[in-house]
Amino acid sequence: MTTDALFAAWLQRTEQQLQRALPDPETAPKGLHQAMRYAALGGGKRMRPLLVYAAGHLFGADDSRLDAAAVAVELIHAYSLVHDDLPAMDDDDLRRGRPTTHIAFDEATAILAGDALQTRAFEVLAEAELPASLALACLRTLASASGAAGMCGGQALDIDATGHQQPLADLKRMHALKTGALIRAAVCMGALCGNASTDELARLDAFADTLGLAFQVRDDILDVEASSEQLGKTAGKDQAQDKSTFPSLLGMEGAKATLDELASAMQSALAPFGESAVALAALGELTVRRSH
Amino acid sequence: MTTDALFAAWLQRTEQQLQRALPDPETAPKGLHQAMRYAALGGGKRMRPLLVYAAGHLFGADDSRLDAAAVAVELIHAYSLVHDDLPAMDDDDLRRGRPTTHIAFDEATAILAGDALQTRAFEVLAEAELPASLALACLRTLASASGAAGMCGGQALDIDATGHQQPLADLKRMHALKTGALIRAAVCMGALCGNASTDELARLDAFADTLGLAFQVRDDILDVEASSEQLGKTAGKDQAQDKSTFPSLLGMEGAKATLDELASAMQSALAPFGESAVALAALGELTVRRSH
Repeated sequence: MTTDALFAAWLQRTEQQLQRALPDPETAPKGLHQAMRYAALGGGKRMRPLLVYAAGHLFGADDSRLDAAAVAVELIHAYSLVHDDLPAMDDDDLRRGRPTTHIAFDEATAILAGDALQTRAFEVLAEAELPASLALACLRTLASASGAAGMCGGQALDIDATGHQQPLADLKRMHALKTGALIRAAVCMGALCGNASTDELARLDAFADTLGLAFQVRDDILDVEASSEQLGKTAGKDQAQDKSTFPSLLGMEGAKATLDELASAMQSALAPFGESAVALAALGELTVRRSH
Repeated sequence: MTTDALFAAWLQRTEQQLQRALPDPETAPKGLHQAMRYAALGGGKRMRPLLVYAAGHLFGADDSRLDAAAVAVELIHAYSLVHDDLPAMDDDDLRRGRPTTHIAFDEATAILAGDALQTRAFEVLAEAELPASLALACLRTLASASGAAGMCGGQALDIDATGHQQPLADLKRMHALKTGALIRAAVCMGALCGNASTDELARLDAFADTLGLAFQVRDDILDVEASSEQLGKTAGKDQAQDKSTFPSLLGMEGAKATLDELASAMQSALAPFGESAVALAALGELTVRRSH
């Protein structure tokens, strides 16, 4: 299969698995169920599930063995977007070209939908037809990446930093937690399901760490250069909120040069895996080149 | 050991285990870490951990085997209180005699602290030194009780019902999810850790289901009869919000008679276990008689 065909198959699989994992929109409490579905099924790049499938594929794991991890990491991502968009947080009305969940429903329902999406993520892994020790290893990986030492901690650092400039090291640390941790967890869970060795896990983690950073550098560049219509979310927001970004600290040329370096670093990290890493390499490329 | 001595030991154990499970208040992001600790360590009856220990004790399980489930269920309870108190939800300023988390910190930090407490609950179980299949069974039990089909769903039903009277059956169903599910999960996890049989699990579940309902009936009675000072939270809130309660639907005498019936039903459910269920029976009694 070509990489494009693999991605198409994995994207379809992700949608099917998410559909199955989410509660019936016609059963009470309907508002909650519909908000959960609205938040998780409303498009999105599905970068994290694709990383799970691609990392597992590298070791020859069946897609069916990767479904639970793919769905779980996307549910965590979906919940984080719902809560980050809340008025008390980033206060955003637009996401993926649609009203955010608290606008489409209401704030209370959005808070609860985010909460229940998080719960469901861990439940999906706990219910997975996987060896018990593997399911627990995935659960530990995902929980550690999502909580106070990962994504939640990164969001807290981001809020603390809003309104004043911060040094590059702090900016990187914030993004490593806020975005990077979950991207690394996706790659790690895929590799765990593929029975990767400790060495292989470490090498892939270096790739995922770089990809997470590249994702954010590209995000910051797009926030300046793209329109809200292209992004499906409010553009120009970083500057409006006086947030430090890679372009604000490095200049636009510096940020683009950094992105090129990160692209090379990703290629190097995958080199030892040869042709079998073609899907992961393509996801790295997509991250660097994406226009939304 | 007397029941009082058991409870004192379990309460101490709960505090120690929660202390250990929560992140360092002096490490960044400090606000998040401190809010998590504020929410989880600020007192509380610790009813759910006590139920875990008491249910495990009934089958002779070591306390150390029960710690993870006890901590996990309390972390879920703590997160739910933080989110339920938010302005967009119940909008409460007072909890356990102290400012609620979003008052003591801020709304964004409270949302994130709740999120991270939930994550930590599942992480504690995934990290527990338990047989993998038992850890997964506890994870499934806790997730199912916490999510859209349990506590979160109950809170959604409660919000939907605010401002108009609802029939008794709907009120019971709402409370069975909002409060009952987690209480049942506590008892179930304790029993699972004690290697209870399917029959024993079913019998204890009937007890826990009754206890959950009794807990809520007592709560509704206290909301009318006790002061905010006694409760440590705002009294008289149900009537102010025009919520259906057991006293509003059954009259105060009817609610108290219902409570007596539930107390008898709890005793009957535990009768087959004889003397070994003394701790669980005492928790049932406490639930019916509590003054806050």
